[in-house]
Amino acid sequence: MLTFHNPAHRAHAGRHEMYRGRLVDCHEVPQRAELVVDELKRRGFGQPRTAPAADMRVVESIHARPYLDFLRTAWAEWVSLDPSHAALDILPSVWPNHGLRRDVVPANFSAKVGLYAFDAGSPITAGTWDACIAGAACAIEAARQVAAGADRSALVVTRPPGHHAGRDFYGGYCFVNNTALAAQALRDAGHARVAVLDVDYHHGNGTQSIFYERADVLTVSVHGDPMTEYPFYLGHASERGAGAGEGFNLNLPLPRGTAFGPWRRALEQGLDAVARFGASALVVALGVDTYEGDPISSFRLTSADFVEVGLLLASCRLPTVIVLEGGYAVADMGVNVANVAEGFAGG
Amino acid sequence: MLTFHNPAHRAHAGRHEMYRGRLVDCHEVPQRAELVVDELKRRGFGQPRTAPAADMRVVESIHARPYLDFLRTAWAEWVSLDPSHAALDILPSVWPNHGLRRDVVPANFSAKVGLYAFDAGSPITAGTWDACIAGAACAIEAARQVAAGADRSALVVTRPPGHHAGRDFYGGYCFVNNTALAAQALRDAGHARVAVLDVDYHHGNGTQSIFYERADVLTVSVHGDPMTEYPFYLGHASERGAGAGEGFNLNLPLPRGTAFGPWRRALEQGLDAVARFGASALVVALGVDTYEGDPISSFRLTSADFVEVGLLLASCRLPTVIVLEGGYAVADMGVNVANVAEGFAGG
Repeated sequence: MLTFHNPAHRAHAGRHEMYRGRLVDCHEVPQRAELVVDELKRRGFGQPRTAPAADMRVVESIHARPYLDFLRTAWAEWVSLDPSHAALDILPSVWPNHGLRRDVVPANFSAKVGLYAFDAGSPITAGTWDACIAGAACAIEAARQVAAGADRSALVVTRPPGHHAGRDFYGGYCFVNNTALAAQALRDAGHARVAVLDVDYHHGNGTQSIFYERADVLTVSVHGDPMTEYPFYLGHASERGAGAGEGFNLNLPLPRGTAFGPWRRALEQGLDAVARFGASALVVALGVDTYEGDPISSFRLTSADFVEVGLLLASCRLPTVIVLEGGYAVADMGVNVANVAEGFAGG
Repeated sequence: MLTFHNPAHRAHAGRHEMYRGRLVDCHEVPQRAELVVDELKRRGFGQPRTAPAADMRVVESIHARPYLDFLRTAWAEWVSLDPSHAALDILPSVWPNHGLRRDVVPANFSAKVGLYAFDAGSPITAGTWDACIAGAACAIEAARQVAAGADRSALVVTRPPGHHAGRDFYGGYCFVNNTALAAQALRDAGHARVAVLDVDYHHGNGTQSIFYERADVLTVSVHGDPMTEYPFYLGHASERGAGAGEGFNLNLPLPRGTAFGPWRRALEQGLDAVARFGASALVVALGVDTYEGDPISSFRLTSADFVEVGLLLASCRLPTVIVLEGGYAVADMGVNVANVAEGFAGG
């Protein structure tokens, strides 16, 4: 298994997020990726690779250019408004919902932030763009290497995560959708049918929305029921795709407290769908916040269960790119992700 | 001029709002209404009246019942989740935008908050519902008294304000749209054509959206250009109403820094529209945040100018209900509102 690491991830270090009514320290911290890289090296996966600069043609085929321009320039604009802003992360305070207009881009900076955000848990910092675009580069490069046959699989260790980010929006700690970029890069490299399997605790609303009207990318997500779990407003079983994409989205929501047994059965349903779809390549959105120790999630997978997750994913026998998404039990991140990788490599 | 006061307003006292990326003390404070009542009494307007309980048929003709149920029960639910919540106001942290669904009401409390809010500047507190529904009662009663001929005009001194609140959403410190309720109560009392004239610094997006497809209520707003001013995403001159309401909404946005001269010319345009519409009654959404000393706005009206504002409003010669909206230069609130009232009474 090739491993890729985005060293620029450290540039994105948010200070605070709004979480259930209060400003708290960010859950999505640099140590998450560091511990994963350390554990992978310890287990003999070797020095992770880095990637050349992101191919912006791929990035712009997934994200809208005005949105990317905003992400790239937001921090500079924020600080130019008031140098004291450097001590503050960017969080939205107003947003166009309820018939408010999104077709006119306001000149006001706060209004532009609200135009692109769907939560107040995802601070934009001085290094957010650099971290995101370097993560995008890793996801694209991993997909290209796998498509070129350099290895059967690759694991992309990056942050911030990406699966909540859509064509022109961010939220859920995600800004640029690395998983979607890997899927698109596999498509661009000649794979006619690519499957995305999202095993993060939270529904991958960004990925779903990006591919919702496409038949060439199947999106499958096993996740906490949105009636009670973030991101709340998407991820129901009734969402099956639209237009040409009708039938090419599969949501498998599970109740709070789900243990590995029923979780695995849902994953197997997802794997069946991938097989029926006839995918020739797979992207896994790997969140390990399904872990029993996760501070903001409620499934009950143990560290040992993650080995079997890797085995199950490997059972597809497809060229596979695994992209790191969530997981907030920081101290156990390394072990849990490395267990998936070892399970996959042994499968 | 009759005056009405909502003593329950004090029950709504937010602690913090998200404002341009940080949590700051609320701008919309109880003292605002207190100082207005004091100054009105000092100038001989007499003891303000209170109102009987709000007629829920009127309230439910303006706001959706699930939204009202949410407002009524939000605090109890918030505190039932965790007694420590009593020390925290309710602020949204995630919202359904960007294709996220609003058609399924999640069970999660934070998700419900986000379903109805369009900003994080409008904390729900223990007393928000009581304050709002008592304010609604005053607005309805004032309209009924004016319609019944008890006086040519009434001034409703209440808070929180209302003009940013829509059929099923809150924001901009507003939860229940008192201005819209007064207009509806005038309609219900037999006025076939009612005009709403919003002179608050901020566009009355809630009021506009409530009446946008109706021809029986003309909505006119003179306000800071939404390209740079809150609420940013609505209030452009191009918004003229829709369906049966086409042509019955008039927005008169003005640039930051506008002084009384050009502001008055815009108001006169608005008054002309009211006259052409053939309104038989008028509701004024009176924000005094057009004042040169307002901390979050940028127009340059002086306290003396507000006397002329009152005179101009009186020049319509219509039964008129004036409803207090914004104004955050707290110490000068009383003088500015009382100046409008005196100007009106003398006009």
